[in-house]
Formats: sequence, structure tokens, C-alpha cells
Amino acid sequence: MSHEWAFIESLRGIAASPAARGLLDDAAVLEIGGATLVLTHDMLVEGVHYLPSDPPGDVAWKLVAVSLSDLAAKGARPVGALLGYTLGEDAWDRAFVAGLGSALDAFGVALLGGDTVSALAGAPRTLGLTAIGEAEGPVPSRGGARAGDHLWVSGTIGDAGAGLRVLKGELAASEALVERYRQPRSRLEAGQALAPLVSAMMDVSDGLLIDASRIAAASKAAVAIELDAVPLSDAFLACLGDSRAARLAAATAGDDYELLFAAPPGRAAEILAFSDRIGLPLSRIGAVSAGGGLSLTHAGEALPLPFRLGWEHG
Amino acid sequence: MSHEWAFIESLRGIAASPAARGLLDDAAVLEIGGATLVLTHDMLVEGVHYLPSDPPGDVAWKLVAVSLSDLAAKGARPVGALLGYTLGEDAWDRAFVAGLGSALDAFGVALLGGDTVSALAGAPRTLGLTAIGEAEGPVPSRGGARAGDHLWVSGTIGDAGAGLRVLKGELAASEALVERYRQPRSRLEAGQALAPLVSAMMDVSDGLLIDASRIAAASKAAVAIELDAVPLSDAFLACLGDSRAARLAAATAGDDYELLFAAPPGRAAEILAFSDRIGLPLSRIGAVSAGGGLSLTHAGEALPLPFRLGWEHG
Repeated sequence: MSHEWAFIESLRGIAASPAARGLLDDAAVLEIGGATLVLTHDMLVEGVHYLPSDPPGDVAWKLVAVSLSDLAAKGARPVGALLGYTLGEDAWDRAFVAGLGSALDAFGVALLGGDTVSALAGAPRTLGLTAIGEAEGPVPSRGGARAGDHLWVSGTIGDAGAGLRVLKGELAASEALVERYRQPRSRLEAGQALAPLVSAMMDVSDGLLIDASRIAAASKAAVAIELDAVPLSDAFLACLGDSRAARLAAATAGDDYELLFAAPPGRAAEILAFSDRIGLPLSRIGAVSAGGGLSLTHAGEALPLPFRLGWEHG
Repeated sequence: MSHEWAFIESLRGIAASPAARGLLDDAAVLEIGGATLVLTHDMLVEGVHYLPSDPPGDVAWKLVAVSLSDLAAKGARPVGALLGYTLGEDAWDRAFVAGLGSALDAFGVALLGGDTVSALAGAPRTLGLTAIGEAEGPVPSRGGARAGDHLWVSGTIGDAGAGLRVLKGELAASEALVERYRQPRSRLEAGQALAPLVSAMMDVSDGLLIDASRIAAASKAAVAIELDAVPLSDAFLACLGDSRAARLAAATAGDDYELLFAAPPGRAAEILAFSDRIGLPLSRIGAVSAGGGLSLTHAGEALPLPFRLGWEHG
């Protein structure tokens, strides 16, 4: 992956605008007129980010949810989307549009435009979505976590990764886990409510540990995670149990599209009240302190970091 | 191409927002926070929209210019861009970034963000660019042409199409024509100046005749083009001559990225004065009248429309 890293590094050289946030955040933040726009573009490649056998409606859902998750992490309300589409087989395309309509409806987003291209015969499809959002207040970055902050995560972690393993036949069937993999929810409402309370926020897309290490790096602070406190779903526990290995698998699996955020201890009561109000678990999983890097404990014991913290792609 | 047509038709069903302009315009137009945003997304597929042997810097230039041409046609000032990139061979990627930097600099656009993905080995690359612009006044559509308007076009027509034929070895070498194919200019300054003067405007990307027929259809009016009046460059004339066949080839070739617009006769003096001021030819090539459809004359003689008016893709 060092080639991708070098490529993004070279892009940084031509992304000098403050709106680009050094290409280090989930989205660009552009002040225009009196509005704060939040902009993100995400791609899915057939055979890389989804399986050719995945239901096309679920691929559409994922394309939308992945982009909106970036807006959620910046506390933005989605306004619209532009689609980049590679045409393929007719029935697949129809089912994709139906799924796209459902996803955009579910998240309350308007399709504004885009482009449609034909691919060479046999070439895998590449799909893209640009999501445009608007933020009402300051937009949290990954770099604002301060010593003394709590580290929080929304929902449950590891379900999507386990769902993928179910689809690969590595785990016993679980509809709940597969649904988390195929139809991730973007935490838009939570993102907007939390933005004024947090010091740093991002979405968990590549794996809890690697994403937490990115908050540590961007914030020039140390982040400690208690593996015991990482929230696991009943479906995950039924399938994989509650061993240290299972918890490490959850924390490095990726595709969660939950919110990971740091907030001063004084915000805890508000955060928990909001969690109760909307019925979405918000769990304290660690703490921020002076220093740098990520550390991990389980059952009161310091753990060495696993070799692989998550997906290394940007 | 009826598959693409049907696909876009089905997208229209889920693009009900007025900002989408029925997916019938060059770009989406979104009012937000007192600003008028103009948004477009364009894709280039290796082997379809560019040749694997094309210099990567020129591919980058084209990706930027094609998107910005849509903003130009809506009279918008470009604000930023998001890149969707498929990684490939390292040297190619480096040269692409260098070319992207040059193009963004030349057009004064900031890179704001995007996504980078890995492709399966051997798969053609798909590149995408979302361009975000801001318009100061009303944004011309394709549908505002009225009976009595003049039809105008900027620059010269047919050069890029001839440049592609040079590259294919079908025409004698001409650097000027190849440059028009590889490094199209987006008429941003002209678009912004013309927007308040025109009744309809779009960019010529698929071919002058097919694009003019789109203005006729969107405006529910008849458009007549005098083939003699279509501006041809010296390089084009030197290469292809001034026959009726050469003029028809120019008018159906595509990739011009010039502005095609309708304006009331009372605006002609202002349009010509602006043309003089910036040194960009703006030529009257026809007229709008009541009725519908496109018609063509040459040397005072009515011509049947050629079977192929341009590229049929959206």
C-alpha cells in the first residue's frame, strides 16, 4: 500500500487549500456564501470493494452509506449527491437504480446529477458518489482530541466484518451480521447532534484500531482503548463469543461506519442523554492523554498492538 | 446506446429535486446559504474516453477541462474539485498528478479531496472528477432559447475531432489539432461574462449538431444552423479544406468544449464587444424560431441532417 500512500502524499502537494484539510480528514470543508459545505467522494470497485455476486441494491446502498458516513462524521446534514456510474448488464443496472432510490430516500438525500459511462467488455465496474452536505456549526476534525478527553464510539463494532466472513462461508449464517455488512447505517443524526460536543470525530471505516490511531496521530496525543469496553452486538457475541481474539477481530475488521469521537469528560452526561433519546448506544471505550500513539488493554492487562490494525487504504 | 438512455431515464425518477434540473442540463444548480452552487461530475475510462498511450498529464488535463467546461456553460466560477482515482502503474500515476497540478493551476481550481482505489490487475482505469462552482447570477439552462434569438458558438469547431484523427493516423500531422484534442480549454471567463446575456447555454461536447438539437428540444423551439457560418480554424482548413463534407465532419465531431448559446438580437453588440475584448471568437451560426427540431443550410441550400449528429452518450 506504500504506492497509494506515496500517491496521496503527492496529491497533498497540490491540495493547498485549507478546505482540503491536508487530505487528512473524512471530507473537505468549504466555506461559501454564508454556508459551510462538507464534500466527500467515495468509490467502489467491483471485485475489490464488493463481490460481483452482491445484490445490486445492496451495492447502491453501500455506495450511499459510505459517503454519507463521512458527512455524519463531520456533523453535516446531507444535501445532495452526484453519481458516477459504469453501465453494465441491464437487469443489474435496473436493480441498482431501485436500490439507489431506496437508499437516498432512507437518508433523505437528493440525486443531483453525475455521469454515466460504458466500460470495455468484461472490465469490472467502478462506481463513485460525491456527497454534499451542510454543517450548521464548527466542523470537527480528526485532530482536536486533547489530553483528558474520553474516547467514544457509536453502535456496535465488528458486525460488518463478521458479516463478510459469514458471506465467505467462514462463519455460521447470521442475517443480522450480513445486513450490517451489506446495508451499513450512516450515523447522520448522531453526527449532527454530537458535532458541538466533541473535540475530534471521524467514522470507523477501516477498523476501530487503525482509525483510533489516526485520531492519535492527527491530534498529536496518545489514545488508549479498553478492549473490554468496545461494544459488541448480541449477533456478534452469538457467532464469535467474547474472547480476546474475538474482540481483536472486531476492533480490526472495518466497514463499521460508526462514529469514533473524543470529548471532554464534562460532555459525558449530554452524550449519554442523547444516546438514550435516540436509542443508539454511545460507549466510552478509552481515553486521550499526553504523548502519542495507540495503546490497548484487556481485562486490566496491557496488550501488544496486533500487527494489522485494520485496512491500510486511505 | 438505448441502454444508457433507459438508465438515465430511470435515474430521472429519483432525481426530483429542482437542483437536478431533470438531469437534462450540464450541471446541477443548488441554492445554499445565499450562494448558487453549480456541481458536475465527469468520468473518463481508459480505452473508452482516452487511449492507454495518451500522455498521463494530458489525461489529467482533459479530466479537469471536461468538468470545468460544464461549469463554464453555466456561467460559474470554479471553486474546487474532488478526484476519484484508480491507481495503476507508478510512473503513470506520478505523471498524472503533475498534469493534474498544472491543469488545476491553469484554471485556478483547488483540489479539495476525493478517493483513491486499487483496481484488479489489468482492469482499465476509471477516473472521475467532481467540480464545484459558484454562479453570481441566474444560471442559464439549455431550455431558454426563444424564437428570434441568434445562435452563437465560441472559438472554432471540429479541431479536437480532427486532432483525434491525426492521432489515429487518418490525417497528416498537426500539432495544433492534436493539442485541441488533448488539452481542451474550458471557456470559463467567457461563460461567466455571457451568462447574463444569453437565453440558453451549454457546452459543445458531443458534437455541434447533436448539442444544438438538445437546445432545440429543451427550449421547445426550432434551431437552424448555417454550416457556412460555423467557425473553423486555420489548422482545420489546412488539414481538411472547406468542403461541405469537411464542415459536416467538424459539426459532428465532438470534444470541442466550446460554448453554444442563444441570445436575443439586442445582445449581439455586447457579445461582439466582449469577444473583441478577450480575443475569443464568438460567431453567429444560426437562429431560433417557433417550432421544433434542428435544420441545416449550406451555401443557401437546405441540407438533410446527417444520420449521425454526434456522440449519443449523455
